[in-house]
Amino acid sequence: MVNAEAETTMYPKTPRNTVQRYRPRVHTPSPEDPFPAILPMLGFMGLYDPQNLTEENINEGANLYLHGYVSSRLMRMGKKASEEGEGSEGEEGLPMTVAASCLDGLVLALTPNNHSYNYRSAILQGYGQVVEDVDEKLWAMEKITNTVLTDRWENTRVPPTKTEMTTTQILRITPHTASAKIRRGPPHDDRHDLKDEELRNRVWTGVVPVHTVYGTPIRGEDCEIREVPQHITNFIDAKNKENKQFAINRAGDEDES
Amino acid sequence: MVNAEAETTMYPKTPRNTVQRYRPRVHTPSPEDPFPAILPMLGFMGLYDPQNLTEENINEGANLYLHGYVSSRLMRMGKKASEEGEGSEGEEGLPMTVAASCLDGLVLALTPNNHSYNYRSAILQGYGQVVEDVDEKLWAMEKITNTVLTDRWENTRVPPTKTEMTTTQILRITPHTASAKIRRGPPHDDRHDLKDEELRNRVWTGVVPVHTVYGTPIRGEDCEIREVPQHITNFIDAKNKENKQFAINRAGDEDES
Repeated sequence: MVNAEAETTMYPKTPRNTVQRYRPRVHTPSPEDPFPAILPMLGFMGLYDPQNLTEENINEGANLYLHGYVSSRLMRMGKKASEEGEGSEGEEGLPMTVAASCLDGLVLALTPNNHSYNYRSAILQGYGQVVEDVDEKLWAMEKITNTVLTDRWENTRVPPTKTEMTTTQILRITPHTASAKIRRGPPHDDRHDLKDEELRNRVWTGVVPVHTVYGTPIRGEDCEIREVPQHITNFIDAKNKENKQFAINRAGDEDES
Repeated sequence: MVNAEAETTMYPKTPRNTVQRYRPRVHTPSPEDPFPAILPMLGFMGLYDPQNLTEENINEGANLYLHGYVSSRLMRMGKKASEEGEGSEGEEGLPMTVAASCLDGLVLALTPNNHSYNYRSAILQGYGQVVEDVDEKLWAMEKITNTVLTDRWENTRVPPTKTEMTTTQILRITPHTASAKIRRGPPHDDRHDLKDEELRNRVWTGVVPVHTVYGTPIRGEDCEIREVPQHITNFIDAKNKENKQFAINRAGDEDES
C-alpha cells in the first residue's frame, strides 16, 4: 500500500516525444529541461477482477492505482500516452517511477558514521494509463478512500455524482520493475570503537522507535454529529497500536537487508 | 529541513550524455531506459560560510546538502558531473529533483470526492556536486547528524577517521527552482451536500490530526549506559510536543493555498 508520502516522477516515452524533448537540448540546452518532475500522490496496490471483487488481491499480478485531478499535468500526460499507445502489450502508457518511504526509527551508534535510520522504502517503475472503465474506476475510488481511513467510503455520500466521476481521474500503473530497501535492527559499530571502553561509557547507543500517530478527531464547523463514529475511533485505536508495536519490533530485530 | 522521507531523482545532463543516453531510444527503445531513478536520502538546507559558522543560515542563499555512500550510483554520477563541469556559473553538476513531504492530517468530508490530506510538500530542483572541501564536508556531516537528533554529533566519537571521511560523501545541491504545496484546515464540502440535512446527520466531518512520534529509546546490546542521556530525552519530549501541537493547529486553520 502506498501512503500519502508516495512521490511520483515521470516523463513521456514515445520516440516522437523523446526527440522533441531531448534533441533540442543537444544544440540549445535549456535550464528548464533537465529536471524530472515529482508529484506527491495517493494510491494503493490491487488487482481489478470483476469476477472476484470481495477478495484482496495484492499479489504478483497487482497494479498500482494513483489518484489525481483531471487538470494536473500528470493526468494529461498519462491520458496522452494512453491514447498514443505505441508500446508493446503491458508497456503502453506513461513511464513513471513511484517511491514510497516510511521511517521506523533513529539508529544511534558510537560514531556519526554508523548512525542510520530504520526505514522501509519501495520503488516501482511502470507504465501509467488513465482508467476509462467506469466499474474499475469506481472500484479504485472506493479502495483509495478506504486507504485513507478504513470503511470510510460506505460512511459517506456515495455513489459519486456524474460531475465527480468526470473531474476525478485514476491512473493505473502496470509494474515493469519493483524493488524495496529496508533497514531494521540495532546499530552496528566498528570493532575498534567497540573496544574503546571510555567511548562506550560515554556514548549511549540504541534505537529510538518512530511511528505515525492519529490524534483526537477535530469536528468540522459544518458537522452536526457530536460523537465521533466508531469506524473512525476503531481505525485510530487499531492503527496507533499497530504502528507503535511495529516500530518497536523493527528496533529489536536483526537487519535482514 | 529535509527529513528521512526526502526522495531524490536525477539523470545526467551534459549534451554528450544526453545523446548517448536518449538518442539510441529513438531507434531501439529499451525498456530499461525511460524511468527516472529515485533514491531516499537524508539532508538539510544551509549556507556554508566559514566566517560565520555559528549562525543558522536558512535563507535564499542556502544550498541543500545530501548524505550518501561513495559507492552509490548517485554519488558516482554527481562526481562525474562535477568533474565535467560544462554548465554556466552555479549550474554545473548533476540536475536533480528533490522532494520531501509530511502528513499533517486526514481531512474527512461528506463525500469521498472532498476527502483530502493536510500535508506539506516541497520540491527543489538544482545542480548537485560532490563536496570536496574538507571543512565544508565536516560542517555538513555535523549538520546532517544533528538533523537526525539534536546535539547528537557532540555526544559521539568525533572527529571522523580518515577512512570515514573517504567513504562518506556529501552532495551539495545549488537550487535552480523550488516550490511548496501545502494543504491545511477543515474539510470543504459542496453546497448541495451541505443543504442535505439527512446526509449531515449521518456523516461525521472534520480532521484527524496526524503526527510523528518518537518512542521510548531501546538500548543496544553493546551499550554500557543504563540511563538514556538528556540530549536524547530532551529531543524526544520537545519534538513529540511540537509535532502534536503542529498537527492540531493545521487542522484548525484555514487553507492558505
